[in-house]
Amino acid sequence: MLPIAVDAMGGDHAPAAIVAGAVRAAHAGTPVVLVGDAVRLRPLVDTELRKRLRRREIDLTVEHAPDAVGMADSPSSVRSRPDTSVRRTVQLVAEGKAAAAVSCGSTGATLFAAVLDLGTLEGADRPAIATMLPRRDGGRLVLLDAGANVDCRPELLASFAQLGAAYAEVSGVPRPRVGLLANGEEDGKGNMQVRATLPLLRSLDLDVVGNVEPSAAMEGACDVLVCDGFVGNVLLKAAEGAVGTVVALLREEIRRRPSGMVGAFLLRGAFKRFRARVAWDATGGALLLGARGVVVVGHGRANAVAVQGAIETASRYARTGLVDAMTRRLAGERPR
Amino acid sequence: MLPIAVDAMGGDHAPAAIVAGAVRAAHAGTPVVLVGDAVRLRPLVDTELRKRLRRREIDLTVEHAPDAVGMADSPSSVRSRPDTSVRRTVQLVAEGKAAAAVSCGSTGATLFAAVLDLGTLEGADRPAIATMLPRRDGGRLVLLDAGANVDCRPELLASFAQLGAAYAEVSGVPRPRVGLLANGEEDGKGNMQVRATLPLLRSLDLDVVGNVEPSAAMEGACDVLVCDGFVGNVLLKAAEGAVGTVVALLREEIRRRPSGMVGAFLLRGAFKRFRARVAWDATGGALLLGARGVVVVGHGRANAVAVQGAIETASRYARTGLVDAMTRRLAGERPR
Repeated sequence: MLPIAVDAMGGDHAPAAIVAGAVRAAHAGTPVVLVGDAVRLRPLVDTELRKRLRRREIDLTVEHAPDAVGMADSPSSVRSRPDTSVRRTVQLVAEGKAAAAVSCGSTGATLFAAVLDLGTLEGADRPAIATMLPRRDGGRLVLLDAGANVDCRPELLASFAQLGAAYAEVSGVPRPRVGLLANGEEDGKGNMQVRATLPLLRSLDLDVVGNVEPSAAMEGACDVLVCDGFVGNVLLKAAEGAVGTVVALLREEIRRRPSGMVGAFLLRGAFKRFRARVAWDATGGALLLGARGVVVVGHGRANAVAVQGAIETASRYARTGLVDAMTRRLAGERPR
Repeated sequence: MLPIAVDAMGGDHAPAAIVAGAVRAAHAGTPVVLVGDAVRLRPLVDTELRKRLRRREIDLTVEHAPDAVGMADSPSSVRSRPDTSVRRTVQLVAEGKAAAAVSCGSTGATLFAAVLDLGTLEGADRPAIATMLPRRDGGRLVLLDAGANVDCRPELLASFAQLGAAYAEVSGVPRPRVGLLANGEEDGKGNMQVRATLPLLRSLDLDVVGNVEPSAAMEGACDVLVCDGFVGNVLLKAAEGAVGTVVALLREEIRRRPSGMVGAFLLRGAFKRFRARVAWDATGGALLLGARGVVVVGHGRANAVAVQGAIETASRYARTGLVDAMTRRLAGERPR
C-alpha cells in the first residue's frame, strides 16, 4: 500500500499540527510520508511518537523539501518553485511514490501544484474543490467549485458541471441532476456569469435542471450544484456559520432551565446522530476534483484531528480508485 | 396616520394572499391601501372581510392600477409602464399619500420603481436590500445587498458600505464595523470585484475591518457585511437552507426514540425561544435601503401571514422615521 503524501509545512498550525495528525493517521494504520523541512520535522515526529502510550511499528517517513509557501506568497509563485513542500507532495503522487496528496496550506498554491505536477483529467480545464453537503431529503449534494477558482469563465463552469456529474455518478447517483447556483430558479435569473453559463450547460449531455437557489438545492432540487469558487466558498461558509449559530443558540436556550438540562440528557443520542449527519465536511478535507490524481485540501485552521481526517479521506479516495473511475466516466461522456 | 401602500398584484400567490395579508394587517390596526386591478381586488377584499369573525371598522382602501408586472417581464420594462401596480404603489409614497410601500413581486421591478418614483438618498447610487441576521455573540448583522443588484461595480459596493453603516448607526450601533464579504480574511483574498473594492472601502470615513468570511461575520466579526446582490442572496438562502436542514434532521432524530420525545417535551420552551431568535427575517420582508422613502420587499412565496409581516415591518420603519434618520446620518458622513 502506497503512503499518503502530506505537506507538513502548509496550514496555520504547521508543522506541529500536521505532524501530530500524520502520526495519528499512521498509528491508525494509514502509511504517511511527511514532506517538508526534514531538520524541523524529525524532532517533531520523535516528540509525537514519544507521546503515544501504545508503542508499535508505524509507517511514517519524512521526505525533505527545502522550500515552503508562506501565506503572504502569491499562489502562482509555486510555478517557479518546484522544491516547495506542496509541489514535492504532489510530485510524489505523480512519480507513483504516494497514493494521494494532502495539504492544509494555500488552496491556490495546491491548485497550481496539482495542475503543474499532475495535470487535469480529459475535459477538465482546471480542478475544482468538490464538497458533499447533507440534503434535507436524505441525499447528498455535490457542490463545486467550493473555493479553488474565484473568477470563472462560463466555459470553466460548464467543465465543472461535467466533473461534478461524473463524480456524483461514480459516487452512486445514476443520472445526477445538475443545477446552476443562482438567486432564483427561472431562466434569466442570476448575474451576467450565470446568464452566460446556463445555455452552455444545456448544450451538454447532462440532466440540467436549470438555475437552483441554495435553499432548494439543500432540500433536494439537484444532485450537483455548479458555481464559481468565490460564491461556492461563501455558500459553504454561510451554511457552516448558520449551523454554528443555531447550535450555539440552542445550547444557550437549553442551559437556561433545569427541565432543559433533563430534556437535553434524554436527547443526547439524537443530538449525537444529528451532529454526525450535519458534519458539513468540517474535518474530512475537500477533494480537488479534476486533477489526474487524488489531492485533498484540508482546512487552513486544521488541528491534529482534522489533519488525520483529511489523510483518511485521501486514503479512501485512493483505495476506491476515484481517479480511474472519473477518467472512464469522462471518456464515455460526449457533448450532444 | 398614512396608510401602507401594498402592491396587490406582485408575488407567486397574488392577488389572493396579498389581499388576505392586507386584511389581517388592517384588522390589527395598520391602515392599508391595496394597489392593483380594482375589479379583481374588490370581491377578494369582500370575501376576506366576510371570513373575519370579529367585525369592526378597518381602514383598507383600493387604488386602481390597470397594469401589472408578470414574472416573465423584464424588470426594466416598468420604466415605460407607470401604471403598473408596483409603480403606483411606490408613487403613493412619493405623492405623500402613503407612509411606505410593500411589494412581494419582482425585486428588480420594485428596485426600478423605487429609483424612478422616489429617487435615492444622497450618496446612494442605487438602493440595496438590507437584511438583519442574528449573530452568535447576540448582536445583529446588517447584510447588504441581499438581492437587488446582481452585478455591482466596486463604487456601488462602496456606496452600500456607507448605506449599511448609516443604517446600523440609526439602528443603535454607535461605530459600526464594516466588513467586505470574501473567501478569506487577508487582504488580497476575494475575486476581482472584491480586490478592487477593498481599497475603495478603506478610503471612506468608516471603520473597515477588511475582508470577512460569512462564518466569521455570523460569529460577530463585523456589524455590516457588504457584497453584491447575487452573492448576498446566495449567502442568505444558504443560511436559511442550512438552518432548515438542521431543524428537519434534528426533528427526525428526536422522533426516533421515546426518550427523545420526552426530551423534546421538556425542551419545548427552549425550542420556542430558539426559533424566535433564528427567524432569519423569514416573515418580515426586507428593506430596500437607500430609496428616498420606505420600500419593503416581501418574499415572492409570501402567504397571508408573511404579507402581514411585511406590511408591519414597513409601518414600523415609517413610524420610526428611518428615511429622515438615514438622510441626516449620510449628510454628516464625509469621505476622509
